[in-house]
Amino acid sequence: MSDELILVKQNNAVLEIQINRPDKMNALTDAMYAAINNALDNASNDDEIKLVYLRSSGAHFSAGNDLADFLQTDFNLESNVVQFLLKLAALEKPVVAAINGAAVGIGLTMLLHCDIVFASADVKLSVPFVKLGLTPEGGSSQLLAQRCGDLKANEWLLTGRTILAEEAAGTGLVNQVFDSAEDLWQASDSLTQKMAKSSLDILLASKQLLKGEQREEVLALIKKEATIFGQRLKTDEAKAAFDAFLNR
Amino acid sequence: MSDELILVKQNNAVLEIQINRPDKMNALTDAMYAAINNALDNASNDDEIKLVYLRSSGAHFSAGNDLADFLQTDFNLESNVVQFLLKLAALEKPVVAAINGAAVGIGLTMLLHCDIVFASADVKLSVPFVKLGLTPEGGSSQLLAQRCGDLKANEWLLTGRTILAEEAAGTGLVNQVFDSAEDLWQASDSLTQKMAKSSLDILLASKQLLKGEQREEVLALIKKEATIFGQRLKTDEAKAAFDAFLNR
Amino acid sequence: MSDELILVKQNNAVLEIQINRPDKMNALTDAMYAAINNALDNASNDDEIKLVYLRSSGAHFSAGNDLADFLQTDFNLESNVVQFLLKLAALEKPVVAAINGAAVGIGLTMLLHCDIVFASADVKLSVPFVKLGLTPEGGSSQLLAQRCGDLKANEWLLTGRTILAEEAAGTGLVNQVFDSAEDLWQASDSLTQKMAKSSLDILLASKQLLKGEQREEVLALIKKEATIFGQRLKTDEAKAAFDAFLNR
Repeated sequence: MSDELILVKQNNAVLEIQINRPDKMNALTDAMYAAINNALDNASNDDEIKLVYLRSSGAHFSAGNDLADFLQTDFNLESNVVQFLLKLAALEKPVVAAINGAAVGIGLTMLLHCDIVFASADVKLSVPFVKLGLTPEGGSSQLLAQRCGDLKANEWLLTGRTILAEEAAGTGLVNQVFDSAEDLWQASDSLTQKMAKSSLDILLASKQLLKGEQREEVLALIKKEATIFGQRLKTDEAKAAFDAFLNR
Repeated sequence: MSDELILVKQNNAVLEIQINRPDKMNALTDAMYAAINNALDNASNDDEIKLVYLRSSGAHFSAGNDLADFLQTDFNLESNVVQFLLKLAALEKPVVAAINGAAVGIGLTMLLHCDIVFASADVKLSVPFVKLGLTPEGGSSQLLAQRCGDLKANEWLLTGRTILAEEAAGTGLVNQVFDSAEDLWQASDSLTQKMAKSSLDILLASKQLLKGEQREEVLALIKKEATIFGQRLKTDEAKAAFDAFLNR
Repeated sequence: MSDELILVKQNNAVLEIQINRPDKMNALTDAMYAAINNALDNASNDDEIKLVYLRSSGAHFSAGNDLADFLQTDFNLESNVVQFLLKLAALEKPVVAAINGAAVGIGLTMLLHCDIVFASADVKLSVPFVKLGLTPEGGSSQLLAQRCGDLKANEWLLTGRTILAEEAAGTGLVNQVFDSAEDLWQASDSLTQKMAKSSLDILLASKQLLKGEQREEVLALIKKEATIFGQRLKTDEAKAAFDAFLNR
């Protein structure tokens, strides 16, 4: 296996982006966001790419931001992490995600900008921002309620508790659950290859209608949340929570 | 049984519209839309009618548009099929639908403009527009996500796959599932007759509040989708898909 | 147990409001709304209160308005019952509700303004306005569909039928179901005490993002519905329905 932390390959008209840092539960660093952003730009500009397939290596989809790396990086609207969310939300081609194991923080909120999400039965999702003294990001303050209903979104965001596969499927947080990661990846391969048999035109026109007028609102929401998130990062409450987490 | 393709009868204050072309899986022709439109106008104008009950004869609700007939008919905003969707979405009186067997294409999208949908356990729904090189119609690009969550709507519309009763009930695509078509029709008769005991005033005022400000947006959405759909119909991709379907 | 009909106590940073009229299924009178409103004002103004926990005494959450009392009280936008809904919807601090037994009418619609709702397995919810010749109130004409999907909201509001725990959980009308009222209250105590360990700042900022731009729309909706509801109250249809109910 390559030692690149983000693997990108084209499989027919599908661009596969694979988070590849399994020894760190696929926690995401600034450099990894930059690599994904580059791949998303290529997906957007290359007419031979019809859709994006996002997955990861190993036992977990992503533990979210690598907190040590995150604290060493300036956080603002130009940061690679925020640009990643904006690029994903703005992408005009469909995005399919396959998730297994932990999908935490941005490992969940990025899914709100994917069009189809397949999961394995061992998936464990959470948005534990409140535990770090932080506010919802990545559009989750509105999009999680839109996808799963307001009560579940409120509970998940206000308590940070873990969501298992059955609850994720029952609330519409994921499309389908597969018995194992192998089954998940096989089904996702099959789905994305099947979708790639449609023309690029029809995929673009369909996604355009599905996103409707909402895309601009979502981009504005991501920026609004990121601005508040950035202010929270500077609070003593957040600093103490980060310290406790990193020194646990 | 009458050889009329659309049966219309009044049962107390309920106007029953029954799609009656069971030998063709209740596929809908231009003439059938015209007949339904006439019935909807009567339902709207007749103060003795409090609500509409929509069902079909035989083993299937509707296989959707009769494609051979569809290709022989001009498609534009004045077409009977588009006027049907607009009239159904604009109707101020409640509409209850009872569906069994296949509910395909417009056989599903028309349900998005019904207020209550009962189903039998053998129901098989799909919106396979993408397989015909076409884009979502009938308001489905927004209303399917609003009813069932965005992930399921995306998957159903981007892949065209079939939805069975359990998934339909679990996602809110239908209200309730009954063991057989007979049970379905009995429950729907009972429901509609019970609803007809309320005054017309209270039904109109309640539906007005439930639809809220959204009705005008939905009518505009149906027209927008129909315009794009009409452009897609002229593409080589759609023509080839139709040819393959009709000559399979 | 106190003979106060509304019990209010502070438990650490949680303000507990307990409806305490178990011999009347916790039906709510004008005086009880006034007492709750007073408690909500205190919750809003007291910086030592981080969140509100709403529950009741005995076998039922609330049978809704005490109809005899309701008919003796002027109904308008200044009424205590309408002010209660407006204050609850406007509260900037999180509200957790624990419901068991009957939750009828406003006993359900008030939940649409709570952020997290835990229920016991014996819960029986309904919004039977149509049976009283009345229209949806408390924001339910829009918020019930937003929380549970439009089909279920339509059916519940147009028929007034009862919703049991399994359906409530499956549709997102409640967050979680517990085996007994004792389990429910224990879990709700635990949840609210855990939430109170977050700072007030982070709870306010999170709820502000979750409510988004919608709060003003909801307040306007409650007022609009109350105005129409007030007109319906004066109709012969509603008067006859109330008479039949009170003399049953």
